[in-house]
Parts: sequence; C-alpha cells; structure tokens
Amino acid sequence: MTINKRLRVGIVGATGYTGVELLRLLVQHGGVDIAVITSRSEEGMPVAEMFPSLRGLVDLAFTVPDEGVLGECDVVFFATPNGTAMNMARGLLERGARIIDLAADFRLKSAVLWEKWYGMPHACPELLEEAVYGLPEVNRERIRGAKLLANPGCYPTSVQLGLLPLIESGLADRGSLVADCKSGVSGAGRKAAVGFLYSEATDSFKAYGVGGHRHLPEIKQGLTAVCGETVDLTFVPHLTPMIRGIHATLYARVSALDVDLQALYEKRYANEPFVDVLPVGNHPETRTVRGSNMCRIAVHRPQGGATVVVLSVIDNLVKGAAGQAVQNMNIMFGFDENRGLAQPALFP
Amino acid sequence: MTINKRLRVGIVGATGYTGVELLRLLVQHGGVDIAVITSRSEEGMPVAEMFPSLRGLVDLAFTVPDEGVLGECDVVFFATPNGTAMNMARGLLERGARIIDLAADFRLKSAVLWEKWYGMPHACPELLEEAVYGLPEVNRERIRGAKLLANPGCYPTSVQLGLLPLIESGLADRGSLVADCKSGVSGAGRKAAVGFLYSEATDSFKAYGVGGHRHLPEIKQGLTAVCGETVDLTFVPHLTPMIRGIHATLYARVSALDVDLQALYEKRYANEPFVDVLPVGNHPETRTVRGSNMCRIAVHRPQGGATVVVLSVIDNLVKGAAGQAVQNMNIMFGFDENRGLAQPALFP
Amino acid sequence: MTINKRLRVGIVGATGYTGVELLRLLVQHGGVDIAVITSRSEEGMPVAEMFPSLRGLVDLAFTVPDEGVLGECDVVFFATPNGTAMNMARGLLERGARIIDLAADFRLKSAVLWEKWYGMPHACPELLEEAVYGLPEVNRERIRGAKLLANPGCYPTSVQLGLLPLIESGLADRGSLVADCKSGVSGAGRKAAVGFLYSEATDSFKAYGVGGHRHLPEIKQGLTAVCGETVDLTFVPHLTPMIRGIHATLYARVSALDVDLQALYEKRYANEPFVDVLPVGNHPETRTVRGSNMCRIAVHRPQGGATVVVLSVIDNLVKGAAGQAVQNMNIMFGFDENRGLAQPALFP
Amino acid sequence: MTINKRLRVGIVGATGYTGVELLRLLVQHGGVDIAVITSRSEEGMPVAEMFPSLRGLVDLAFTVPDEGVLGECDVVFFATPNGTAMNMARGLLERGARIIDLAADFRLKSAVLWEKWYGMPHACPELLEEAVYGLPEVNRERIRGAKLLANPGCYPTSVQLGLLPLIESGLADRGSLVADCKSGVSGAGRKAAVGFLYSEATDSFKAYGVGGHRHLPEIKQGLTAVCGETVDLTFVPHLTPMIRGIHATLYARVSALDVDLQALYEKRYANEPFVDVLPVGNHPETRTVRGSNMCRIAVHRPQGGATVVVLSVIDNLVKGAAGQAVQNMNIMFGFDENRGLAQPALFP
Repeated sequence: MTINKRLRVGIVGATGYTGVELLRLLVQHGGVDIAVITSRSEEGMPVAEMFPSLRGLVDLAFTVPDEGVLGECDVVFFATPNGTAMNMARGLLERGARIIDLAADFRLKSAVLWEKWYGMPHACPELLEEAVYGLPEVNRERIRGAKLLANPGCYPTSVQLGLLPLIESGLADRGSLVADCKSGVSGAGRKAAVGFLYSEATDSFKAYGVGGHRHLPEIKQGLTAVCGETVDLTFVPHLTPMIRGIHATLYARVSALDVDLQALYEKRYANEPFVDVLPVGNHPETRTVRGSNMCRIAVHRPQGGATVVVLSVIDNLVKGAAGQAVQNMNIMFGFDENRGLAQPALFP
Repeated sequence: MTINKRLRVGIVGATGYTGVELLRLLVQHGGVDIAVITSRSEEGMPVAEMFPSLRGLVDLAFTVPDEGVLGECDVVFFATPNGTAMNMARGLLERGARIIDLAADFRLKSAVLWEKWYGMPHACPELLEEAVYGLPEVNRERIRGAKLLANPGCYPTSVQLGLLPLIESGLADRGSLVADCKSGVSGAGRKAAVGFLYSEATDSFKAYGVGGHRHLPEIKQGLTAVCGETVDLTFVPHLTPMIRGIHATLYARVSALDVDLQALYEKRYANEPFVDVLPVGNHPETRTVRGSNMCRIAVHRPQGGATVVVLSVIDNLVKGAAGQAVQNMNIMFGFDENRGLAQPALFP
Repeated sequence: MTINKRLRVGIVGATGYTGVELLRLLVQHGGVDIAVITSRSEEGMPVAEMFPSLRGLVDLAFTVPDEGVLGECDVVFFATPNGTAMNMARGLLERGARIIDLAADFRLKSAVLWEKWYGMPHACPELLEEAVYGLPEVNRERIRGAKLLANPGCYPTSVQLGLLPLIESGLADRGSLVADCKSGVSGAGRKAAVGFLYSEATDSFKAYGVGGHRHLPEIKQGLTAVCGETVDLTFVPHLTPMIRGIHATLYARVSALDVDLQALYEKRYANEPFVDVLPVGNHPETRTVRGSNMCRIAVHRPQGGATVVVLSVIDNLVKGAAGQAVQNMNIMFGFDENRGLAQPALFP
Repeated sequence: MTINKRLRVGIVGATGYTGVELLRLLVQHGGVDIAVITSRSEEGMPVAEMFPSLRGLVDLAFTVPDEGVLGECDVVFFATPNGTAMNMARGLLERGARIIDLAADFRLKSAVLWEKWYGMPHACPELLEEAVYGLPEVNRERIRGAKLLANPGCYPTSVQLGLLPLIESGLADRGSLVADCKSGVSGAGRKAAVGFLYSEATDSFKAYGVGGHRHLPEIKQGLTAVCGETVDLTFVPHLTPMIRGIHATLYARVSALDVDLQALYEKRYANEPFVDVLPVGNHPETRTVRGSNMCRIAVHRPQGGATVVVLSVIDNLVKGAAGQAVQNMNIMFGFDENRGLAQPALFP
C-alpha cells in the first residue's frame, strides 16, 4: 500500500508530556499535517509558547475540542487523562476518523475490571471488544485494520516485551512472576503536585502503589492472552530521579535449565524494528533509549539457577507512549513502520 | 560502664566517601580524638584541603600509615579498598588496638569463599573466625567484646534488616528470595572511572553484576546464620542517579497467609534505635534517611497474595558504612549506642 | 550570661522547607523545647507524618495558630509566606514573645518600598523601624536586644556577605555592581507548581526575574546602610538543578589595583564563626556548605584587571534561612552563637 | 549548487562526547557516508559497543588513524583533544580532504597567544591565517570556501551570539563586558577524573578558572574582529549539574537608553536558521535547546538602567560543538544549512 497524500492529524489534549512528545515526533515524520491541537484550559495559547522547543515548528494555538473539526481528521490522538477519549470515541468513529488513545480507556477488555481499577463508569463498554491493543510485537496484523487503537501503558510495554518469549514458550512458571519496575518522573505527568517537585523527587528513590497499580491488570491481560492461561504477577513500581526511562527487572522461575534463552529471545525479536536483544552478559541502560522508540532487553540466569532475570528498558514517553502511538499510526496507515522514529537516542 | 576518657582514634585511608563520612560523624561525636588519618597517595595534604566541608573541624594532614602510630590508638578504622586491612590487622591487634574494618576483608567466614569472590589470597585467614560481623541488630553482644570487627556491606545491611523477621520466624520460603536493590552512585566509591562520571550516571538507570555480586555470599551467610538452614537468594543490584541511599525491594514467598506481618516486624525491632518500621501502607523514601543512621522498613502483601514485599532503605554511607561503624564503636567502647548518630536526615 | 532554663519555642507555619529545616536544627540544639507547631491547612496531622525524617524526634501535631498559646513562648519563629507575620506580630510582642520572622515582612525599612515589591499593604508599618535586620556579621549588637527580628533573605545573605568588605572599605564602584546568583530549587518553596516539577527543573538552567526581584531592594538597603551612600546593583537570579545552595558570583569595579583583597576579606571575617574566606585561587562549591550554616567566600581579580570577582556560597535553607534564624536566636538569648549549628556539611 | 553524490566522511577520535554526538547527527543526515572512525586506544572495538545508542545505526569499528584512508575522505572531522588536528592537518589538506576541527587548534589567529593559553608549541602556525573560524552568523561566506575550518568553542559560541548585535552596533561599552557562563558537565569531556564523578558534580554548583580560561582569548578575538576595536571581557565559567547546556548571562553597559534592543536583536538574526530571539520579557531555558542546534536569546534592561542583560542558551554538544560542525559542513558542501539539524529539542 502506498501513501499518496499526507495524513490529517488531530491531537486532543497536548498540554502534557505525552502530548508534547507526540508533537516532537510528528513534526519530524514528514507524512502528516497536524490540523488541530486541543486543550480546554489553554484555549488560544500558541502551542510553542507553552513548549518553546517547538518554536518555529508548530504554529497552531490550542483550541477547544470540536467533534466536527476532529471528525475530519484521518486520525485523532488522545493524549488526555483517563476518561476523556471514551466520551468522544463513538462520535469520531462515526465521522470516519480513526482513533489512537494514549490513555487507558480502551486497554482492558473487561469493563468491570476497568471500572474497578479506574474508579469510574466506562462510557462506552461496547467499544472495548472492538478496540485493538496496540502492542505491535503481538498484534501487528490486527493493528493494520484498527479503527480504535488502545496504546499500551508504559510499564505494560516494558514488562510484556521482557516476558513474552518466556510466556509464549511456556518456560516460565506463570504463578510466581515478579516485575520490579523503575520509572522516570515524567511518568507521573505534568500536573502540579508536591510529591513530584524537584526538591521532593530528586536524589531519592521510593516504591509506590505496592498494594496495587492500574497497570497490573493490563499486564496480566496481555500475558494471559498470549499463552491462553492465567498469568499472575507481583508488580512493584518505583519512582526514579530521572526524567525519562523505564527499567523493568523481571524475575521468572523456569524448570528447564538447558534452554538457550539468548537464542530464544534473539529469534523472537529478530524481525522487530524496535526490540533490541543485547549480547550475553549485557545490562541495558535507560539512557541508551532516551528519546528513542527502542526497547533494549538482556536476559540473565544468575549463578545458573532456576530464576531467570530479564532486564528491559524503554523511554516511557516514546516506546511507552508517543513513539508507540506513531508506530501504530504507521502500521494503521501503511507507512514504513519506523518512519519518524529512526533517530538514535540522545546520548549522553 | 562509664567512659572516663576520650578515645584515641586512627583512620586508615580516609580519601574516599566512607572515610570523609566517618570524619563527618566523628567530629560530632564528642567522645573521640582523631589522632591520625592516613593515605599513602596524599601524604602531607591537609585533610580539609581535600574535603573543604571539614575546614576548621579537622586540622590533620594525611600521613603514611605507620603501625607504631596506629597501634597506639584505642581503635583503628579501615576505610580502605578491600585487601588492605588484612595486611595490617595482626600487627595492630598485637599492639592492643581494636579494629573496625569498613571494607570486606573479614566479612566472610570462609577464606575459600572470600578468595573466590574477591579474587586474591586472604592474608590472615586465621582471623576470620575471631572477627565479629558488625550487624548490631543480630550480633550486639558479640560486638561488645570484639577486637576485630567486620563492618557489614551496604547492600547486605539493607537486605538482612529487611528479611530478618521473615527468616528468623521461618515464614519465608528460603529458596526463592529475591532482593532487587538500588544504590546511589556514592556506593561505587571515589575512584575516577568513566562509568561513574556525572554525564554517564545521571538521568539513567541500570542493573549491574546480575551474574554475581560480592555481596551475595555475605547476605547468604548472614541469613543462613540466623535460621540455621541454607538460604538462597537472587540478588540484583542497580545503579541509581542519586548520591546516597539504598532501596532494597525484597520478595519472599510465604505459606502462612494469616500472620500479622506488621506486628512481627514492629516487635522484632521494638528496641532497635536504628530500625524504624513504618505504619501499614507506607513506602519509605531514601531521602528520609539521607545522612542518617536509620533504616526504615515497610512490609506489604500485595493483593493479599503469597508474595510478601518488604521495602528497606538506608543511607549507604551511614547505616551502610560509616554510621554503622560508629554505632559498632559505641557498642564496643560502652558509649550510648546512638552517640554522634542522632541527627535527623537532611530533608529535603 | 548563662542560660538557666530551656527556651520555649513556637513555630508558625512549618509545612515548608524553611520550617522543616528549622525543626531539623532545633531538635539538635539541646537548649530549646518546641512547644507548638502550627499550620492552618494541616491541623491535626502529626508533623513526623508529613516529614518522616523527623519520626521519633518530633511528636507534635500541627495545630491552628493561637495567639494565646504562641504568646507564652519565649520566641516564635514565622516560617510562613510573606504577609503572615505582620498580622500577628503586634499581639505576640505585647504578650512578651520575641519574634524571628523568616519571611520578608520586616526586612525593608520603607513601607512604601515594601508595598511596591510585595504587592500588598503592610499591616504594621510602625514596627518596621523597630525590627532588627538579622545579619549578624553587620548587626550583632542590635540583634542581642531585638524583640522583632527580620531574618534576611537567602540571596541578600550571600550577596551582602560577599560584597561587605568591598563596600565598607569604599574600594568598589557603588554604581556598577553585578550580582549573578544561582539558587537551588528549594528556594522556590514547597508549593505545587508546574515550573518546579522534577521533569521541568532538572537537567536545565534558566534565569528568572531579570526585570526585577524582591531581594533587590533588600540588598541595596543593606549595602547602602553600611557605607552611607546609595549602592546600585544589577541582580540576576537563576534556577539551578540542585536542591540546596546559592552561589553568588559578584562583579565589582575597583580603582585601586594595589590593595590586598585577600587580606581585606580575611581580616573582615576573622572573628566570624560562619564566614570562611578560602585561600587565594580557590573556588567554593555549594556542596561544601550543604546542610551547614557556613558561608564560604573566595575573592579573585582575573587577569589583574579592574573587575573583582567574588564567589560566595551558602545553603539557602541554612545560612540563607533556618540556620541564620537559629544563629539569631542564639545571639538574642545568650547561647553560644554556634550552638546547634556546628555540624559539618553533608559531603558528598 | 547541487549535491550529486553522498559525502565521504572520516572522523578522528570519536570516543568522546562531541564524537558520539557528531555520529548521532550524521546518521540522520542522509547525505553522508561515514567511511572511517578512528581511535588509537580503542582500535578494533565496534563503535556501537562503546555507544549502544548507535546499535544498528553504525556498523564500523574504531581503527587507528591512517593518513591515506582519511585523505580519501571529502571531509575529516577532528573530535580529538587539543593538539591532535594540527599534526595531521597539512597532510590531509594536501591529499585533498577538507577539515573541520572541533578542538581548539585553529581557533586563534595568533600562534603566540595559542601557545600561551594551550601550553604547547603549535605544529603548523602557518595554517592559522588560512583557517576559517566557523561561526556561520559572522563568517558564512568564508566558510563556503574553507578547506580548514576551526569550529568555535562552546562558551565562545554562546557569548558571541549573545553580544554580536551590541558590539556590531557600537552600543556597548567595550571595556566592561561581563560574561557569566554556566555549562553542563558534558563540557568537561568523557575523561575519568574525580572532579566530574556523579557524586562530586551533582547537587552542587561552582565557578572554575576564574583566573583565566582558554575561551577568553577566543571570545575577545571574535568580538574584536566584528567591531575593529579591542574588546575586553570578564569571563567566569561555572560547572552546573546538568548533562548538556550552556547559559550565558551577559552584562553590558550602554549609553544610549532609547535604542529598541529587541528590534536590534530580531533584525540582526532575522535570517539566521539557528538563532531564535525570544519575545520581550522571556527567559530561555537550556532544556529548550537540548539536543538541538538552536541558540535562544533574550535581551533585558533591568529597571531601565544602563546595564543590559542578555541571556543566551545553547546545547554545548550541538550548537557548541557537533551541530555547528555539521552546520559548517552543510555550508562548505552546499547542503541545505539545516540538513540533519531540524529535530526539535528533547523536551522534557
């Protein structure tokens, strides 16, 4: 399939970090025109005044979201808080726009589970089944035809990519998985809150949400889907004093000690443009994916024991959000999958 | 017991972070006189010229270590690389000085194991049995009489304090423990190395030594000692972009689901001056112990499952090194255990 | 003068960084009892729940400020936003309490100027003359008898200490001074605001308030007072990605090129417990005063030219706020001036 | 002029930060082939093994520099320590290669001055006159024809761009300029040195080289060249806890108070692709140019006085080094000037 015209793109809610990151990637894409960028609270403010890094690159001002205007777009990205996209999805789909939701509204298949974890009624549960979970490494074919795409969460992306080969192959004990995840502070979003002030979050480290985090059911659903059997997981997220990056340290008990795990991982991801399996013995650093859509993975079996340790790193704002959204857009509209996503990480 | 005179203290090798931290604590102690501070490489340099934070507080210059001079001290601290203290210990002990080694020379009971992990022959294996492992929460009575004290490693301190109640009580499965540990960069010491440059270590996160880290046998030895049965552990250290602090996230499988873990922990540490069990549901932050000798612990059982998650934080340079050394000195010489260690953390 | 009893201390508004820093210092002081800690918004919350670094050290909960209760204190600290102390000062003074205001309410002698820069009417302009400006290096004698003490601002402390010898001696051109100042983020306080989020303030540097900053008239007033003639100043503050610390880089044109500036500075501060003039050629680092009440100064004349460069560093929360407040309390009540303030900086 | 073939590029010494940054930019350029990357110390090591951010993008290994191989390149970049390029320049020029030196070897026109500041004899003083100083905003026409290009220093780029309009117009007093500059730590390079360790350089701020810095004569030479009269300057560099970025705060005395400085700056840079003059009252942040070749400038006159304050920010590794080098290559070889340099800053 060839792209004969430039895509017309709308972005709802681009005042946060995933929004500005989406803009950074789209202005480098070359195949899209950004037609409208909305924000209720910032109506009239030039986007580049809020984000001076975009001066000279984005000339639009924020406008109030309008279904008519958005409905004329080929694709509408939602870079909004949870609970926004579900209220506009039906209308936009009816007008022919395709939707990529960077929030959580369409990630879970079960409305009951969604309402339990997200604490509000779901506005369009009937769309949950139709929505396609946008992890290309699992769902590429379904993504091509998706009208409504649920872009995965940041933690779920890093954890699933790290565990997929072990789960698909049946090698790991599905009942005792541990995902110890560390995220940069941008994962908390761009909301004023004392806990994320510089003087609170720098030079310190802490776990949070140990009792239960919204990404837990998403990870379980994803891993269960690929193996057809219930997967259980202990998931502990941590706040790390860095801007971007997720480092997932994954622990799995395996019974077969003679499997070549390195080969398993390399084969699984041989054709994936955005998963890089490092050579034996390596330890990926989050900065090697800073600003990049790459996921880098290393697999270890310490002391030759029964516990496999997988290290998986992504940039939470790129492969964990805006970059994966662009990757999904590329797949949905027939662009080269890595178009606009080929830049190396910013290093150092 | 009363202290009638001020202790005469010697410090071997105070050019690193544990050394300068030891000086920071000792100048506030009030019961000691620092008689000599040695460094072969910096002979003649005033200590306060290297560490301007000590201007006006430490008037000594570094001198070349001399057994005669050191032997006249009541206690000699070794804040040296591994392999130094073992070459001077015998001589100093014979002259009547007591020794507190902040390095690893006397931490392991088995010379064979030590030589395997530290890659050099041990200079005085006959002293290993006599050496007392200085974790006061386990060994306080033996510490009182110690002539040769092995100050615990930073990771082993945080991990053992976090797991002790579960191991001593027999609640945890001793074969599937996981210790996912995150350390500030000062843990790597004050040696020039590209990997620990600011531009390399900031704004990034990585695991290291997944295949095997020297603190693993120390942790196993300590936990095995308290329960009398072999304890196995997967231990993964990570480098975190902060100066000080260790956060240990500990995973243990428990069979008895009806035990009150909060009560277990509170009771175990009720009389410990430097272990603080947080209320139910809390998540300790490393910055709450920055510059302090405190270890703060929280215990969780996510989703009511079989995996217990313990969060344990210390300052790697204080409770993980120099502070614990002073605590041990206080015990050994009959000072109040918290003398010189009562300052609150520097916050923010 | 001897202190026969412990001081009874009240703190109004201790939910911010200067408040918690004041608590950190007072619990180590040994000569004071903290009787009451107030906060309207946090009434009932245990102080140590908001600031876990104080667990076990501060048992009070925040209470609503009450003039009767506060009036029974020997001294009341205001660690409040600007505009609070001026509304309570008269009443407390009448009840016999002495006041140390860490905010700006009583720093300027001119109510007109105050109202221009702080944007609100002054509630008790009649007290401005009586208030003593608490820079001990200038006003020590007046501080002893002060009933109402205006604790200096952070920038003004670093700038005045850096320039005093040049201004008092008449060496500097009083019309062309430049103060290029860099502050850690804690200087902005503990208020939720997007601009001070970790992801906004880290790994970046910017000037702010170039058009005019409230500390400008305070600096001018202070320098004018010591020389009796109008001093003019270009003052540019900058936000630096660090928690604590101010670095003032001060530029002054001097006509006499044969003066020994090093001797001038050393003599001026020879008896000052908290001003440390570094040896020739040194460059002070803010971390050498982290958590300490010290101001470290170096004086340079690059290329032997007519522009003198003075480098002056303090911890904005200590010598620039809470530490200087305790120093002033010590002077006011006859304690040793460095009581509770003798700890070395936390380094690294 | 049209480019009909891809350029053949050689890079000498790409193991440092300017080298890896040059690689990051060149792999996105599209008009060049990287033929050879040299390093004596790392011969044989795959470049992407040292810099994993380049995995899959750079397949070369480091080789020992060879004049024959390099001489066949259209252009050779030197990303080496000072003193390397001058020893290879003559030979490469004779073989027809054009040279872009990112080090300082050809920046100063006077060999005497160079030898004074760089502390070694110059190997080819006869080339100094021929070398073109690569500040496109001043020298664009001469750069087109340059065989030997001296890429400007990072501080000099930010300072000159900030002061050019004031100097060219004759508005500023040329004898009392002050450049107070703050640099991220990557400016110190990728050499192992204790002073730039994470634990030394983070959470702190300091000036350095106040007595004299090598960039001072370069700045003076550049400003003197544009106005034809001697310019004097007090230049104080500072080390800032961030990876990338320079913030120059520039102070100039002006006599004419009725000039529209904003218009002056906007007009001067109206056609410059990489200089962005911000609207009145703005303060540029270094993060708005992180990873970008842009220089953002704001001009202020505080309190309407005689001192103008100019704020100028660049990324020291891009506009201050590798980006400007690519910009110069584009000019020299007839590419669009912003080819490979159009990416927005990484924000946050």
